[in-house]
Amino acid sequence: MTGYQPGEQPQTQRIIKLNTNENPYPCSPVVVETIRRTAAESLRRYPDPMAEPFRRRAAEVLGIEPDWILCGNGSDDLLTIVTRALVGQGQLLRLPYPSYILYKTLAELQGARSEEVRFAPDWSVPDAFADGAEELRLVFLANPNSPSGTVVSPARVLELAERLPCPLLVDEAYVDFAEMNCLDLVARCERIIVSRSLSKSYALAGLRFGYLVAQPHLVEQFTKVKDSYNCDAVSIAAAAAALGDRAWLAENRAKILATRARLTERLRKLNFNVVDSQANFVWATHDSAAVRPIFERLRHEGIYIRYMNYAGWGDGLRVSVGTDPHIDRFLERLENNLP
Amino acid sequence: MTGYQPGEQPQTQRIIKLNTNENPYPCSPVVVETIRRTAAESLRRYPDPMAEPFRRRAAEVLGIEPDWILCGNGSDDLLTIVTRALVGQGQLLRLPYPSYILYKTLAELQGARSEEVRFAPDWSVPDAFADGAEELRLVFLANPNSPSGTVVSPARVLELAERLPCPLLVDEAYVDFAEMNCLDLVARCERIIVSRSLSKSYALAGLRFGYLVAQPHLVEQFTKVKDSYNCDAVSIAAAAAALGDRAWLAENRAKILATRARLTERLRKLNFNVVDSQANFVWATHDSAAVRPIFERLRHEGIYIRYMNYAGWGDGLRVSVGTDPHIDRFLERLENNLP
Repeated sequence: MTGYQPGEQPQTQRIIKLNTNENPYPCSPVVVETIRRTAAESLRRYPDPMAEPFRRRAAEVLGIEPDWILCGNGSDDLLTIVTRALVGQGQLLRLPYPSYILYKTLAELQGARSEEVRFAPDWSVPDAFADGAEELRLVFLANPNSPSGTVVSPARVLELAERLPCPLLVDEAYVDFAEMNCLDLVARCERIIVSRSLSKSYALAGLRFGYLVAQPHLVEQFTKVKDSYNCDAVSIAAAAAALGDRAWLAENRAKILATRARLTERLRKLNFNVVDSQANFVWATHDSAAVRPIFERLRHEGIYIRYMNYAGWGDGLRVSVGTDPHIDRFLERLENNLP
Repeated sequence: MTGYQPGEQPQTQRIIKLNTNENPYPCSPVVVETIRRTAAESLRRYPDPMAEPFRRRAAEVLGIEPDWILCGNGSDDLLTIVTRALVGQGQLLRLPYPSYILYKTLAELQGARSEEVRFAPDWSVPDAFADGAEELRLVFLANPNSPSGTVVSPARVLELAERLPCPLLVDEAYVDFAEMNCLDLVARCERIIVSRSLSKSYALAGLRFGYLVAQPHLVEQFTKVKDSYNCDAVSIAAAAAALGDRAWLAENRAKILATRARLTERLRKLNFNVVDSQANFVWATHDSAAVRPIFERLRHEGIYIRYMNYAGWGDGLRVSVGTDPHIDRFLERLENNLP
């Protein structure tokens, strides 16, 4: 197997980077201050194995109990933990298509089988997504989805989960940019697990921190699989501080949503098909123009976006919502490079 | 299964903590300064997927090429990665006994079989450790070993690896406190993989950073298994700074070794059997006194050490080398609690 290939991470400041859905603005100053303070404290000791300081803070913010929360070294760590806990070699994992490519890699790494169920053309989930299947052990659903940025409603998610014979992991990595979320469903249906990331909406991709919410008996099972100390002391403290700064989140979200609306509108004026996004990126396809050469020309000019080509579905450009000047520059160069 | 139980991590400063082999001294001030500086930089971006800044620095320090190095979120992350890359469900993993308990848990999590080969009474490794066996895919050797602190010589390690039909991971978590290491063997025998941790000798258990050294074709295989961004930007920068501060390491090591010698001598005077340790802890057994009640009484007094009882081998006390005042206090209370 080839392994999952993450988006390019050129380690230079000179390019305009709209390819991996990072937040274009710096994180909350409260987070920076917390990291500085933590550095001066004792790093010689092991961190709290369950990241309790974060669990306590998150429980307050989310209105749940701490033992419903499991922390991870980025939400990728949590997806790995859940896969290893629930899916054995040869068993089946279901994922939507087109969606986050990592899900399939996780199945391969586990020696498990995977089965893709296609979204409908309007990015709704067909009933087949909730059908039983032999040795089906886990279903992933990115919500909002990537590359589309679309959302499946909580009512529909609950309906699917209630029909499924196994847990449904709702990957809410982008949910802070959406109008709805599935957190409340976890208490209503034990098969629903919600995972979240601080990488995007908290502008902390460099910190590696995510958490999931599940019923306590599941959290207990997942805990056995995780590395004993999977989160470090600096990121635990910083993530707790980040979640506590609600004002920063609201302000950042408002800026991103405003830019997203403008980006969507401008792309549509350039004759791209852009589905309404509830994430910090948009998915643009084109009926007549080939988009791959556009992607390549922009890349040559130092503007990185993501070109995705999904077999049997089609290709398109996924553009992260950047700062206004970066988006303006992207749009200007895009227009210039259109055939 | 029950999962691996790490040593207790009471989150209070008032106890004397000699139970999880943490370094008793704060990390290098260069590391603290690096963390403070990194916090002010951009955390909004994903970190380098391969932790290149650390790889470049480590390559200089160790005198090898960067592509021989793989970084992990603590060396536990690396042990998990290697196990997942090499050992399939039902295949065999070999480990020494008594040794680091996690190795067996890693096999269980992978649905693999594990086979323990006992150390000889003098903590040397028997020839059987290198025998072939059906579907044997990976062998672990903690060197220095825990709980004994003893070392298998590089010559013997090479001899074992050359007879084995599969890779041998030499876990050098404690090697900076030893007189020898197996790093040079990696180039001589492709089956030898060396893993290291910054938790102990660099006083950075709270940071979660480790690395392994293996031939590049193995590093490439392991890279496919790891999470895309398994090390965060703060720990990558901090770990590179730590490895670069050779003077701090030498000074810290000298202090720990001096205290270890004194601790060993005093324990022997109290009629404990203490094997010469090359790690930052010592293993003390007793011919006549029951050690478990001693452990419990000390714990009640706020002095935490580790009680280990290995079925078919015997029990003992593993005591981390602390500061001189902490070790003095431990020895005083130990003497007082002897039957």
